[in-house]
Amino acid sequence: MNESAVRLILTPGDPAGIGPDICLEIAALPWPAAITVIGDPDVLQQRATETGLRVTVDTLAAEENETMHQRGRLQVRPLHFPAAVRAGRPDPANAAGVVDSIRQATEACLRGDADAIVTAPVSKAVICQSGLPFSGHTEFIAAACGDDITPVMMLCTERLRVALATTHVPLAQVPAAITPRRLESVLRVLHRDLAGQFDIADPHILVCGLNPHAGESGELGHEEIETITPTLKNLRGEGMRLTGPLPADTLFLPRNLAEADAVLAMYHDQGLPVLKYSGFGTAVNVTLGLPFVRTSVDHGTAFDLAGSGKADAGSLAAAIELAVRLARRRA
Amino acid sequence: MNESAVRLILTPGDPAGIGPDICLEIAALPWPAAITVIGDPDVLQQRATETGLRVTVDTLAAEENETMHQRGRLQVRPLHFPAAVRAGRPDPANAAGVVDSIRQATEACLRGDADAIVTAPVSKAVICQSGLPFSGHTEFIAAACGDDITPVMMLCTERLRVALATTHVPLAQVPAAITPRRLESVLRVLHRDLAGQFDIADPHILVCGLNPHAGESGELGHEEIETITPTLKNLRGEGMRLTGPLPADTLFLPRNLAEADAVLAMYHDQGLPVLKYSGFGTAVNVTLGLPFVRTSVDHGTAFDLAGSGKADAGSLAAAIELAVRLARRRA
Repeated sequence: MNESAVRLILTPGDPAGIGPDICLEIAALPWPAAITVIGDPDVLQQRATETGLRVTVDTLAAEENETMHQRGRLQVRPLHFPAAVRAGRPDPANAAGVVDSIRQATEACLRGDADAIVTAPVSKAVICQSGLPFSGHTEFIAAACGDDITPVMMLCTERLRVALATTHVPLAQVPAAITPRRLESVLRVLHRDLAGQFDIADPHILVCGLNPHAGESGELGHEEIETITPTLKNLRGEGMRLTGPLPADTLFLPRNLAEADAVLAMYHDQGLPVLKYSGFGTAVNVTLGLPFVRTSVDHGTAFDLAGSGKADAGSLAAAIELAVRLARRRA
Repeated sequence: MNESAVRLILTPGDPAGIGPDICLEIAALPWPAAITVIGDPDVLQQRATETGLRVTVDTLAAEENETMHQRGRLQVRPLHFPAAVRAGRPDPANAAGVVDSIRQATEACLRGDADAIVTAPVSKAVICQSGLPFSGHTEFIAAACGDDITPVMMLCTERLRVALATTHVPLAQVPAAITPRRLESVLRVLHRDLAGQFDIADPHILVCGLNPHAGESGELGHEEIETITPTLKNLRGEGMRLTGPLPADTLFLPRNLAEADAVLAMYHDQGLPVLKYSGFGTAVNVTLGLPFVRTSVDHGTAFDLAGSGKADAGSLAAAIELAVRLARRRA
């Protein structure tokens, strides 16, 4: 195998969702990387039969190295689920296996045995039903990397990049979570990785306010005055190009986006509806701030489509493409 | 004047903003309605000179009736500002006049002397600096109509309609504001006016969750389980076609919107960034639940553009067009 080829690990997520389906779908495409799935070979084989996808599932032996991807084949580091896997019928009894595949992928990257992780969707609800704490891939992978990591979730389409200051927290907890310390850490990671990973010299970031109309000079909330504006001022003093806090409803007008490299939204539903709308289902989720590359699909498990052959692998293909590009720049 | 012609009142908003500019711009277009501005004729005349727009400003005498709009003319019910008006330099001393024009317009509609109000932008911050309480046109006009009114703010583009369950409140106050009573009132108004004003038989409404991923079965917040889901269930029992609560980030994917007549977002920045992005600055703001038609531009005062001749009247033109269409249906 080419020494400099990108080694990419793919986690299929909840085996009852469309994760296995879309992993099989992308196997039919050519990829300039070594792609390894951490998953259950029997589940993949069965799903290939159910969906009519002609993919050969190659189970890697413990000592066996992965090879460059070959169209129509999928190499798998095996992991077995305790409960029977049925498409469309998630089972919390398999949640530990789902989480374990993500842990194994993270550890492989930390050991230097892989360069990038691409994740297919899990169901947080199913994992939490099993009793395991889990608030999202982003948070889980970051925690496995160490205490000093500030993971930043950024979604990208061809037109737009949106990073989030807070991710999977109830809306009522968002205002208190936007502290000067958090905002500063997130902006440092975003700025550094736009420059370092995305090759953007002197990136320009538009920052949303927290409140409607960015607080309208304090009439609709004080977080802009007390937290966001002073934090941006400090960081501008270090040379970062930051514009804001701006009203989120007008920030995304094309004439405003034209000059920007990324948007920082204060919370999930402020930034992601417009991002996903702009991407027509081909957005990619990137975790910044990690010591390796991690990208993800932008959709859920879609249990109703699992095994039907109708799942769309567009977002997974985009996530793999971006992961390969980012991992090459890091190399 | 044709008895059945729509009588429309236009309020220019803050006289130091682009409101007067865009009122003058739309005067150059043909409109099948009687359009009357409530504003300062001298300000309009001076702005016409500054912007190079050739519009004749006709001041109506107290007893004089408005006539059908004529291209290149603008009829004005006069109102004089106490402080000098300078483009780009808002003065709280003129805020009472700004608010008074909106009050006069509302009263004219309630008396039956007009059919519709179209509003150009004000600055809430400038009005509040003057000491007057003002949280938005929508709230002000509704309060002037009576205590029993639930105004519902809805923004429309050619592709999308988004109504809001809460409007101009700090984000920290949003969760407590989403009560079963509020949600029920808003959905009743939205459903009734989509049918009655927009002529949509049996409208289908997609309802957002409050939390990210619509709370993910309670893992990311409980408002969906405790408030939104039971309210939707009750109203479905009355025959309303309501889908939700849905995760806001995927709700707006084109394949989901295809089947819907409107989206109800729980708060301002959940629904409006995507709406305005989809409309490229030609969105129209409609207030549902009032005893007359009211539409508005979707942008702010843009003080930096006032008097420059560069203000874009596209949203105002769209707001007038929709107001005329809705007022005809009501007639």
